[in-house]
Amino acid sequence: MSTPVINQLTIIGVGLIGGSLARALRRANAVTTLVGAGRNADQLAIARKLGVVDRTETDLAKACAGADVVVLAVPLGAMRAVLEQIAPTLSPDTIITDVGSAKGSVVSDAGQIFNGLPARFVPGHPIAGTEQSGVEASFAELFDQRRVILTPEAATDPAAVTTVCQLWEACGAQVMTMAVAHHDAVLAATSHLPHVLAYTLVDSLARQDDSREIFDYAAGGFRDFTRIASSDPQMWHDICAANREPLVAALQHFIRDLEQLTRAIEQADSDAIKQTFERAKQARDAFCNK
Amino acid sequence: MSTPVINQLTIIGVGLIGGSLARALRRANAVTTLVGAGRNADQLAIARKLGVVDRTETDLAKACAGADVVVLAVPLGAMRAVLEQIAPTLSPDTIITDVGSAKGSVVSDAGQIFNGLPARFVPGHPIAGTEQSGVEASFAELFDQRRVILTPEAATDPAAVTTVCQLWEACGAQVMTMAVAHHDAVLAATSHLPHVLAYTLVDSLARQDDSREIFDYAAGGFRDFTRIASSDPQMWHDICAANREPLVAALQHFIRDLEQLTRAIEQADSDAIKQTFERAKQARDAFCNK
Ligand SMILES: NC(=O)c1ccc[n+]([C@@H]2O[C@H](COP(=O)([O-])OP(=O)(O)OC[C@H]3O[C@@H](n4cnc5c(N)ncnc54)[C@H](OP(=O)(O)O)[C@@H]3O)[C@@H](O)[C@H]2O)c1
Ligand SMILES: NC(=O)c1ccc[n+]([C@@H]2O[C@H](COP(=O)([O-])OP(=O)(O)OC[C@H]3O[C@@H](n4cnc5c(N)ncnc54)[C@H](OP(=O)(O)O)[C@@H]3O)[C@@H](O)[C@H]2O)c1
Repeated sequence: MSTPVINQLTIIGVGLIGGSLARALRRANAVTTLVGAGRNADQLAIARKLGVVDRTETDLAKACAGADVVVLAVPLGAMRAVLEQIAPTLSPDTIITDVGSAKGSVVSDAGQIFNGLPARFVPGHPIAGTEQSGVEASFAELFDQRRVILTPEAATDPAAVTTVCQLWEACGAQVMTMAVAHHDAVLAATSHLPHVLAYTLVDSLARQDDSREIFDYAAGGFRDFTRIASSDPQMWHDICAANREPLVAALQHFIRDLEQLTRAIEQADSDAIKQTFERAKQARDAFCNK
Repeated sequence: MSTPVINQLTIIGVGLIGGSLARALRRANAVTTLVGAGRNADQLAIARKLGVVDRTETDLAKACAGADVVVLAVPLGAMRAVLEQIAPTLSPDTIITDVGSAKGSVVSDAGQIFNGLPARFVPGHPIAGTEQSGVEASFAELFDQRRVILTPEAATDPAAVTTVCQLWEACGAQVMTMAVAHHDAVLAATSHLPHVLAYTLVDSLARQDDSREIFDYAAGGFRDFTRIASSDPQMWHDICAANREPLVAALQHFIRDLEQLTRAIEQADSDAIKQTFERAKQARDAFCNK
């Protein structure tokens, strides 16, 4: 698809994802004016100084005035408040999209505030990130060859979907669409569950008496395994809250499987242990050699 | 400590760890003759061709004849059989050590075969590895600045401990000693538990109906988190079997903590979720910035 000519694009929340999106759009020359908005003027000044956006605003409604596209890139727990601030004055022509890691909660927030999901609201989620946060950690290449999932509804304006799709493609991403509930279940399994496991493991060890020593003897595998436990606690709290039901289901499924393997180890059931490990290695090697 | 002059050192099991040890000892010029032993002549020929060892033997007893030091670097499940093969002809002057990832099982195997742990048997474990196996994956730098834990008993010959310690130091490692049970509990928590979690997660997802799609949407965090699930299934089966009790205890502890966090998510207990994530991030960042 060719790069669209967007006159003004407003990003609310110029952090890791919002900042990277701005940088990638600029790299692609896809937008004439990039407006950055948020609640913190100092942080926004940094974004301006880094050249990530052209103009900044702490008044969110003002930031959206004249925008062709508004991107919500705030934590999931802030989506509702942000939507409440912009809804009253938002032009019906403006396309809205978001980058939230769970989609059901954003769709529900927007539906309540706008009295039904607006036709020009295209929920989205880039499957890309690091364990860093903030605009200083943002970079234009974050979305290169990464996937972005859009979850439009039947009533969503196809032209709005096309524009959002083109914007992400201009950022180097591959775009696909999916139903909201399916997105939330898949992401609960592949992303939210691993984060919860990594956080729980590190916290569980840290609370043990000999925790200092325990970490002293942790090797390279542990460092990789727990990297995601260095992610932003607030953001991950918000994801757990926003995607509660699918995540709890994924956790319960995992706990059942882990209890079964624990029993196999307890009972020295070598076949069960080996089969689990072999299937896992095969799946992981196949996944990584794609 | 100065590098010892070892005339002959025999490594039984010239795989990732045994091969890396041989390469590191050669780099340090710490041994005159390196003998590699194993059950597979073809694999041993590769080790010889790669220059990892000077001489190879498939007759383990022969391989140990004349050795000042014998290093057991076979999987934990093979330790007993190997000890049975070498015990009858082993000189009482020969120092034996091993690299097994669990220590209780090796000490118990050796105790049974030798009728008590020999005074010159120094159990050991290098906290270093990759998810690869085999001599082709071995490299001299594997132990650089990594820790090696020795678990000698009160009756272990101090001179033997010193020699083993010097050999590892010549390989670039830092050596410390610990009680067997303590080693096994610490490693269950920091290494064996994470491996079991990674294997269980990947297998659990792979067995779900939409597994192909699930892996399609897995991002970078998932790749790091599951890297250790690409480790050798046989080796990790052996570790689970050898370190059963401490590992099951660590698993049960973890499951309890995970159930508690699952409940907190279910009940939207924001404080509990945030506290867990914050403590974990703090501990992980501290561990990694050391
Ligand atoms: N990081 C990832 O790996 C990743 C991946 C995919 C999607 N996402 C999603 O992307 C979104 C942003 O995540 P991020 O990693 O970019 O986080 P981040 O780096 O912390 O950025 C969040 C931004 O939102 C602003 N903000 C927070 N609360 C706000 C409020 N109430 N009103 C206005 N602005 C507010 C923050 O600025 P101030 O705090 O200075 O106001 C900051 O600029 C989240 O919804 C997350 O689920 C993240
Ligand atoms: N990999 C790690 O991350 C790591 C870290 C610390 C400690 N360790 C410990 O190091 C030891 C070796 O692990 P590794 O990773 O080096 O495994 P590896 O690469 O698979 O090497 C194992 C070696 O032992 C040989 N072997 C297997 N069964 C044998 C038997 N019955 N008799 C004689 N030789 C036999 C194998 O050769 P053939 O199969 O060709 O006979 C191979 O050369 C294990 O005890 C493990 O717990 C591993």
